Amino acid sequence: MNRATSLFEKIQQGDKRALARLLSQVENNDESLSPILSDLLRENRLAYRIGITGPPGAGKSTLTNQLVKAYRKAQKTVAVIAVDPTSPFTGGALLGDRIRMNDVMLDSGVFIRSMATRGSLGGLATKAAEVSRVIEAAGYDIIIFETVGVGQSELDIVKAADTTIVALVPESGDSIQAMKAGLMEIADIFVMNKADRTDSDKAVQALESSLQLRDHTADSWLVPIIKTVSTRGIGISDLFAAIEAHAHYLKSKGLLEKKRQTRDKEFVEHLVSEKWQRTFWTESRQALLLQKLSEHESPYRIAELLLSNHD
Amino acid sequence: MNRATSLFEKIQQGDKRALARLLSQVENNDESLSPILSDLLRENRLAYRIGITGPPGAGKSTLTNQLVKAYRKAQKTVAVIAVDPTSPFTGGALLGDRIRMNDVMLDSGVFIRSMATRGSLGGLATKAAEVSRVIEAAGYDIIIFETVGVGQSELDIVKAADTTIVALVPESGDSIQAMKAGLMEIADIFVMNKADRTDSDKAVQALESSLQLRDHTADSWLVPIIKTVSTRGIGISDLFAAIEAHAHYLKSKGLLEKKRQTRDKEFVEHLVSEKWQRTFWTESRQALLLQKLSEHESPYRIAELLLSNHD
Repeated sequence: MNRATSLFEKIQQGDKRALARLLSQVENNDESLSPILSDLLRENRLAYRIGITGPPGAGKSTLTNQLVKAYRKAQKTVAVIAVDPTSPFTGGALLGDRIRMNDVMLDSGVFIRSMATRGSLGGLATKAAEVSRVIEAAGYDIIIFETVGVGQSELDIVKAADTTIVALVPESGDSIQAMKAGLMEIADIFVMNKADRTDSDKAVQALESSLQLRDHTADSWLVPIIKTVSTRGIGISDLFAAIEAHAHYLKSKGLLEKKRQTRDKEFVEHLVSEKWQRTFWTESRQALLLQKLSEHESPYRIAELLLSNHD
Repeated sequence: MNRATSLFEKIQQGDKRALARLLSQVENNDESLSPILSDLLRENRLAYRIGITGPPGAGKSTLTNQLVKAYRKAQKTVAVIAVDPTSPFTGGALLGDRIRMNDVMLDSGVFIRSMATRGSLGGLATKAAEVSRVIEAAGYDIIIFETVGVGQSELDIVKAADTTIVALVPESGDSIQAMKAGLMEIADIFVMNKADRTDSDKAVQALESSLQLRDHTADSWLVPIIKTVSTRGIGISDLFAAIEAHAHYLKSKGLLEKKRQTRDKEFVEHLVSEKWQRTFWTESRQALLLQKLSEHESPYRIAELLLSNHD
């Protein structure tokens, strides 16, 4: 109990190493954590969540890096949760992009967490939600989720954000047509990065026409397209202002509160499901499953059998 | 019961409309189906599963189309499960690619099923597995899964395949570096499509060097790179031969049987979890969840409370 209390205190005092250790335990489903997590989350601190997604090569990490700096200048503490594309087999993550963030990593008001997309039971979105909860409780003002691509898990992660930024580059053009079907509707803000390229105006225009096809009411948020050259910090203050405007919009319509309620509800549902699975799959049930499969019993019958066998 | 029997018989007789109707019920979690699915799956027919993935624009649909024709020539019946990128909100799918498959759709030995990536409880991979089970039981020899991108769900889907094909195009080059981290290790066969482009040899060489970095034993499968121009049918017979060679390799090493066992086990685990969730979330538990959230109780405590409250 002493150890737990001291870890709790350390995290409250901004000890990043203690926070990182706790998060690793969270990611590994360490059951003994429930009391400390309950205490931590009872603090009920609120962080503003920003999701950044887009195709590989859109410069998401550089944008994230620049946003971190902008929020630091505005006296906010920032945590980044970076979800790396990874092998489903080795669980290894591409660290190249992370290394570029070195200059912000030494700042005590910045916390960076990489999550590999290895297929954990219950899924990455749940883990990312859990990790962000703990980071929120540790007192960070802003949480930035950075993910690649348009997989369902990645979409689930950015959907958990208050403001979702979709980053594109001029040359994404054709090849992202298909992706856009998914990205179009989750974007609260579009960023056309590398906007110093000659074809960027054309790409912005194409994006604008697509946006105009969306349903609008007088009341709805008009998705802006922000042009940036993130490597040189160009357009970052516009992006910062657009995020603030979107946050203000959400608050004024009561939507921020609603988003948080939905997120809370889904989070508990996931926790319940994961917790249940860990207790359900006893050795005897696992053995029964394998035995019935070897007898060529139908999967549906086996599932029923396992669930009706309550002891 | 009569209706169920007749649907069952129709499917056994190759009635595609009856199969499509059953699959829609499966996708909508129709509980009343359990008996008919159990009967159907007890037939224990086996289909060979091929997964095709790769970045948008790599020509996956055209490749699929060509493979379907090749298998039809070899007297095999083929089903295609196409997982379309889609909006998480509208659930609408991009149908353009599907339309191109018109010429094979009229063939009675071909069955095509589009699945939208809308966020169903339990996830897309489970649904795709379930759909493929039913299609297998209906007697198709070959099942081709076609998915876009490298999201976790999409990777889970192709991991369920016996042979996984990763399709690339010369111009994917840089932008897929990040993707490749995920795609590299799931590929049993690489396809360099649109290989008539001038830069295709360079792209193949780059891919070859990356492949040489992988660990090999004398016993392991050497991932081939097949050059195709799928729009003109070039290289399709090579691809067909490579799939056959990989299937032969899997069988000779006992790996096909092992893959099927793992797949069966995971499928039952998913069914159990989905079935449990549907019975667990009674109205009173849902009400309790919302009440506790409004009292700012910690999500972890609420989850414990819900699970301990067994009646």
